[in-house]
Amino acid sequence: MDAQALKAHFFDVRKTTENLVAPLSAEDAQIQSMPDASPAKWHLAHSTWLYETFILKAYDPDHPVFDEDFHYLFNSYYEAEGPRHPRPQRGLLSRPSLQTVMDYRRATDNRMADFLDQMSAHPQWPRIAALITLGCHHEQQHQELLLTDIKHALSCNPTAPTYAPSFPKMITQAPEARWVKMTGGLKKIGHDGTGFAFDNEGPQHQIWLHDHALHNRLVTTADYLQFIEDGGYRTPTLWLSEGWDWVNRHHASAPLYWTQSKDGDWSIFTLYGRQPINWAEPVCHLNLYEADAFATWAGARLPREDELECATLLAMQDDDEAKRKAAIIASHRLHPAPAQLPQNRRMDADDNPSLLQLAGEVWSWTSSSYGPYPGFQPSPGAIGEYNGKFMCNQYVLKGASCLTPAKHWRPSYRNFFPAHAQWQFTGLRLAKDI
Amino acid sequence: MDAQALKAHFFDVRKTTENLVAPLSAEDAQIQSMPDASPAKWHLAHSTWLYETFILKAYDPDHPVFDEDFHYLFNSYYEAEGPRHPRPQRGLLSRPSLQTVMDYRRATDNRMADFLDQMSAHPQWPRIAALITLGCHHEQQHQELLLTDIKHALSCNPTAPTYAPSFPKMITQAPEARWVKMTGGLKKIGHDGTGFAFDNEGPQHQIWLHDHALHNRLVTTADYLQFIEDGGYRTPTLWLSEGWDWVNRHHASAPLYWTQSKDGDWSIFTLYGRQPINWAEPVCHLNLYEADAFATWAGARLPREDELECATLLAMQDDDEAKRKAAIIASHRLHPAPAQLPQNRRMDADDNPSLLQLAGEVWSWTSSSYGPYPGFQPSPGAIGEYNGKFMCNQYVLKGASCLTPAKHWRPSYRNFFPAHAQWQFTGLRLAKDI
Amino acid sequence: MDAQALKAHFFDVRKTTENLVAPLSAEDAQIQSMPDASPAKWHLAHSTWLYETFILKAYDPDHPVFDEDFHYLFNSYYEAEGPRHPRPQRGLLSRPSLQTVMDYRRATDNRMADFLDQMSAHPQWPRIAALITLGCHHEQQHQELLLTDIKHALSCNPTAPTYAPSFPKMITQAPEARWVKMTGGLKKIGHDGTGFAFDNEGPQHQIWLHDHALHNRLVTTADYLQFIEDGGYRTPTLWLSEGWDWVNRHHASAPLYWTQSKDGDWSIFTLYGRQPINWAEPVCHLNLYEADAFATWAGARLPREDELECATLLAMQDDDEAKRKAAIIASHRLHPAPAQLPQNRRMDADDNPSLLQLAGEVWSWTSSSYGPYPGFQPSPGAIGEYNGKFMCNQYVLKGASCLTPAKHWRPSYRNFFPAHAQWQFTGLRLAKDI
Amino acid sequence: MDAQALKAHFFDVRKTTENLVAPLSAEDAQIQSMPDASPAKWHLAHSTWLYETFILKAYDPDHPVFDEDFHYLFNSYYEAEGPRHPRPQRGLLSRPSLQTVMDYRRATDNRMADFLDQMSAHPQWPRIAALITLGCHHEQQHQELLLTDIKHALSCNPTAPTYAPSFPKMITQAPEARWVKMTGGLKKIGHDGTGFAFDNEGPQHQIWLHDHALHNRLVTTADYLQFIEDGGYRTPTLWLSEGWDWVNRHHASAPLYWTQSKDGDWSIFTLYGRQPINWAEPVCHLNLYEADAFATWAGARLPREDELECATLLAMQDDDEAKRKAAIIASHRLHPAPAQLPQNRRMDADDNPSLLQLAGEVWSWTSSSYGPYPGFQPSPGAIGEYNGKFMCNQYVLKGASCLTPAKHWRPSYRNFFPAHAQWQFTGLRLAKDI
Repeated sequence: MDAQALKAHFFDVRKTTENLVAPLSAEDAQIQSMPDASPAKWHLAHSTWLYETFILKAYDPDHPVFDEDFHYLFNSYYEAEGPRHPRPQRGLLSRPSLQTVMDYRRATDNRMADFLDQMSAHPQWPRIAALITLGCHHEQQHQELLLTDIKHALSCNPTAPTYAPSFPKMITQAPEARWVKMTGGLKKIGHDGTGFAFDNEGPQHQIWLHDHALHNRLVTTADYLQFIEDGGYRTPTLWLSEGWDWVNRHHASAPLYWTQSKDGDWSIFTLYGRQPINWAEPVCHLNLYEADAFATWAGARLPREDELECATLLAMQDDDEAKRKAAIIASHRLHPAPAQLPQNRRMDADDNPSLLQLAGEVWSWTSSSYGPYPGFQPSPGAIGEYNGKFMCNQYVLKGASCLTPAKHWRPSYRNFFPAHAQWQFTGLRLAKDI
Repeated sequence: MDAQALKAHFFDVRKTTENLVAPLSAEDAQIQSMPDASPAKWHLAHSTWLYETFILKAYDPDHPVFDEDFHYLFNSYYEAEGPRHPRPQRGLLSRPSLQTVMDYRRATDNRMADFLDQMSAHPQWPRIAALITLGCHHEQQHQELLLTDIKHALSCNPTAPTYAPSFPKMITQAPEARWVKMTGGLKKIGHDGTGFAFDNEGPQHQIWLHDHALHNRLVTTADYLQFIEDGGYRTPTLWLSEGWDWVNRHHASAPLYWTQSKDGDWSIFTLYGRQPINWAEPVCHLNLYEADAFATWAGARLPREDELECATLLAMQDDDEAKRKAAIIASHRLHPAPAQLPQNRRMDADDNPSLLQLAGEVWSWTSSSYGPYPGFQPSPGAIGEYNGKFMCNQYVLKGASCLTPAKHWRPSYRNFFPAHAQWQFTGLRLAKDI
Repeated sequence: MDAQALKAHFFDVRKTTENLVAPLSAEDAQIQSMPDASPAKWHLAHSTWLYETFILKAYDPDHPVFDEDFHYLFNSYYEAEGPRHPRPQRGLLSRPSLQTVMDYRRATDNRMADFLDQMSAHPQWPRIAALITLGCHHEQQHQELLLTDIKHALSCNPTAPTYAPSFPKMITQAPEARWVKMTGGLKKIGHDGTGFAFDNEGPQHQIWLHDHALHNRLVTTADYLQFIEDGGYRTPTLWLSEGWDWVNRHHASAPLYWTQSKDGDWSIFTLYGRQPINWAEPVCHLNLYEADAFATWAGARLPREDELECATLLAMQDDDEAKRKAAIIASHRLHPAPAQLPQNRRMDADDNPSLLQLAGEVWSWTSSSYGPYPGFQPSPGAIGEYNGKFMCNQYVLKGASCLTPAKHWRPSYRNFFPAHAQWQFTGLRLAKDI
Repeated sequence: MDAQALKAHFFDVRKTTENLVAPLSAEDAQIQSMPDASPAKWHLAHSTWLYETFILKAYDPDHPVFDEDFHYLFNSYYEAEGPRHPRPQRGLLSRPSLQTVMDYRRATDNRMADFLDQMSAHPQWPRIAALITLGCHHEQQHQELLLTDIKHALSCNPTAPTYAPSFPKMITQAPEARWVKMTGGLKKIGHDGTGFAFDNEGPQHQIWLHDHALHNRLVTTADYLQFIEDGGYRTPTLWLSEGWDWVNRHHASAPLYWTQSKDGDWSIFTLYGRQPINWAEPVCHLNLYEADAFATWAGARLPREDELECATLLAMQDDDEAKRKAAIIASHRLHPAPAQLPQNRRMDADDNPSLLQLAGEVWSWTSSSYGPYPGFQPSPGAIGEYNGKFMCNQYVLKGASCLTPAKHWRPSYRNFFPAHAQWQFTGLRLAKDI
């Protein structure tokens, strides 16, 4: 990407973030509902801090620091950058105000504009451009987190406030679930080095893929309701041992944000407020325990990371353009949309059903623990803490969610969360050995 | 108090509360730094809820409820009023906004104005007037809590923000500590029924007071520094058993808000920001464990509730007006002021030193557990939950602090907090048996 | 007490302790079911350690220490004696074995026998004799604790093992509950200095006692069942605020050790194994929260410490010997026995019903926080940690339980436990203001 | 294995377990030092319960159950077998006594002897024989756990008691650490179905192994001391994020059981009591966090499961018998022994150093999360809970420790523990990409 294109991309990302906080009051942007989540104001400041720290301060000796305290307040987890404000107390920072944080964004954006204009001839420009690109991808990650975090925060308010006004109209019928045979063999996964990727996606490497089958679509709320009604949450033998402990400790009986009225009607808290459940939509906000128990109940299993990545690569090479598009299209609304067959098809009756929803709506839990690929090297310097140090007790999620920014996804993308996490837009697709 | 005087008092109290939040941003008013504390916005709403619930809704069948949800959101602990929002999550209520809460206050004040104009002829007026008076005293209690809570919240911000701009000038020399002999015998304590009192202050009743001595003034920061420097926080035999556990669990080595620089200089976080310690001021933000350990180290003990109440009653009857005033005068600043001798005296050399600071600067811990007086009857109805149900594992504090509203104090006042609480303006005066 | 009488008393106490552990296996004597409780083996060793530390090592320069490690292992809480094994880990000390601990007792007893023979002419004999007497009273306290601790430990075994073989026959009808008027005035409470008392019982001092009434007997299981069946554990307004939190945190619905079968039959775990409940017996194993809630439900209140002490002193001076005996007689079985009228009376119809069970069956919770009496001075030296440092957040229990050794009780005795404690033999007697 | 050979194996395993508890008193066998560990008595009973439940009760309709309560008391985690005694309270079961548990073993062994004599002609004999074999392997696992658990329990005793009397003489010089190149390609791992294996070891399956290098021996205490002395425990950038949290929460500064005297001398608690550290021995009792941080510090990484399994398979096929033996020989003492070169070699100077200690001394942490192999099927019935339900947030350990019973090991063996676990005999071997 040349400097002008990068500048345009940078400002596009920056504007998108600010659009996301536009519906929020200063109070909304202040609150933090759990240690895993952050206030919207913090996301605004931290995503700015990254540019200031790793680009402006690193490459511009004359950079006028906006506020020296911000280095302590808005560092997330970079040990190499020194001590920082404790994560669970981010919600207590009433100062700086939202207005000051917006001023910080403005000042940083102005410096970045100048910097981008001047530095494209700098001998280290490729390194600088890579860092700015990383910063943009980082901010895009925070765009999704900002939405999942504010959803959780608003859900703690018994008045069930809305983030966005009106629930979008969606179809109410999902295609039938069907198995798609996937042939194994020697394959390559991981990022091939063309274009941007996080360090954890590489190097591209050979694996032996085993024959297996995948469901053509994500598991729906209707599918999951059957599991609930069949006593899924009361049957220990369906659960991982840790999962069953989790069920009992939390008295879990349905996914996060589901509520059943006294009359038995189910509703779901969304960014559009509380809504009746659409039984065609993908089930969302499952943790790994729930996803795994559902798969066991269904006589199937969670897919592996390599299975989903290979399936995606394959679908993107399909000769049939309609199938290609159906595989990776995503709604980009604030709530997951039901699966849809390739355009203009009312049935999917051939021997090889289309793989749908590989790149959107909800992240797919895998049974693959998040670890280093063979030959993995963290990026040099503090930025090397971005991914590698989290490679323990987390699981890989593939695909993307409806909240994931459009240009942020690629088949090698490795999202990861701990097994108990529920507040992300996480669901599953079934797999089985054949 | 007649209806017009009560109306004036009501609006005076209401205005005072709003003056206290004037320096706060919407973000400041949102945050809650611990379960024991509440957001300023919540104090604003809850103190309003009490009038709406116990007066307007109870006595005005046509009262248009401002927002039905507020009954759930802003009930503090009245079980008889039904379920309520969990205390530790008050800081997550970004909605209603600060502006809406101010509108709620305005609407309620307008209804109260009409109500006060109309109801003074109502057959139940005495009961109504008593409830309004209680509501005003309740709001005055929340005025002090609002300040202690926002002080704690701001102290969690590593940038040490200020609530008020400039630290007031104070004297830097305290009078020498001297013992004052107090003669025992049959005495009466508790409220005599004239004027307002909380139910827990009555009935007035006879006790046998034992001879004892009290220090003429509160313990100062200079006094307390000697305890620290003598290894007070490292000497288990000075502490209550529970206190020593507390020291070890919290690695306590100085009072809350005290910080020592690498050079050994002490500073203290105040509502005026971080300041050097004035060694003449009363030591503040001690919990009972610290107060008790200090007293043991000093070869003395904490006073009992009856000792401080009798001393105050006695001082208020002193023939010497200057001594009378010196006993109960209070600074009403946002930080405790040093003791001062009765006006125009440079020494206090007579045999019977003046008792100072009996009604202000910091609350005095007593060794008296907070329990019911003989014959105690909680008020009828939900309002009876105001005091009685907390009579367990809390200790009585007498006097008042510099934050206590001027007309809120009386000798029979019984403040109470758990032994570990530090965030109130709490200190001590020494006592001993003779 | 002269040296020979003291020696006889000492050996009597020592033998009694060993009789109590006779039914226990090495495994039984090892286990510790919660941090508040101790293994029987630890009680055996600690009660011995006290004599060795404060008498033999203190007064006999040639004392051959049995095992240097025991000073660390078997110190309970004497900070002045240095660091010690953490209380919650007492149950992990498989070494020394029970056999070695019994050898330690034997060796110490032999030294004590010699010591008692030789030291009665020592100039410090009165101080020594006082310490030995204290050691005996200390061991008697541990006799009761040993039984309550082993009861709790055995109750954790789902097979409900027995400590003692056969449940004793008891009457099944309790006298009717009646109010006894108690006249107030200037009274003296506290120990008068004649004979042994712990430091916390003194000094004797004057108090003003208010007129009140007491129930003639302890609250029975039948009384308490009414409270349960009336929804007592589901009615927040009956409970202290802390008590209601406790109910919810522990899902409490009946006293400790009560179990209801599917058929609705109640049984109770006892030192004689699981038994049907005798509805005439005093309710036992209540904590202060439960006792207070019951009293509120019954339209009464908990008595104060001074009320129960004055009532006991009065009953002991009654001219009627049968009434005198009935007031302080105790069963000394391993389970509380029902109240009985003074001997040879089938009714108690006069105007002034007899006060029963003032000195036995179950300890009576009072509303009096455990604090220092006016003029209280802890004993000098390490032994001064015996009582004073626990004077915070504990409540006084008067009377005694059926497990309390016969000669251990006196009217001024002040037992104390935290409000939540249930595993002692604790119940209540109702009081009210008149 | 025919019935007589199986019978001999069964009694050999049973006898071995009892030999292991021979040095323990009834008290030693009672204690449980943490929820992860179990009392020795419980191991004795539970390993017996498994035969009674899954063999005798399942296949012998006339089996006289020894004690009906034992089904509840000694079930470990088999949900399909119903509710069970809570794991953290195993140490509270003073009844049944150690003697009764030994009687239970004796009675069960007698029934098993008859059963083995009679059932070899039963049509289901192969299934029965497989279950008995599983039961023996299960008991062998508990032999190792019994030792690691009692080591932990004794370590909680400040007197540092010994399990075994005299520390064995060991060499004090380890071979130099050298890299061994390992060539990748298509390989097979997992159990091939010949002989016994747990279900989690299968099916055998193809993988693509990447080129890499392994150290010839395990990391030694001397190696690890360098890490400590270089500030390893104080350098956040060396640690996994979770690991650094663990360091701070536990104030970790050395491996479990290491103690440094005031003079700087290091000692280590062993089953032979406290001993000076032998700097040639493999470092032991590391958790995954420590192992990973050490590897990072050393510029290397943890091996993957497939790397260690392939290396072991290769070493076992070496033409050189001395190298073959050196790879898999193990000391079978109660403390890990230093590495030794193949017999009769004083140096290992050729281009391809011998791989040592692949099957003994300490378990090797891998970076491989414990998950299902492609095609994995849990065993049918309750026994299917043996492995599969733990496939979450645990990491694979390869090799074996000096405590692992000799015939229990095979190359496909997959041990697994959570990343924080330290009390097993766990260490590491370094790997790197090439």
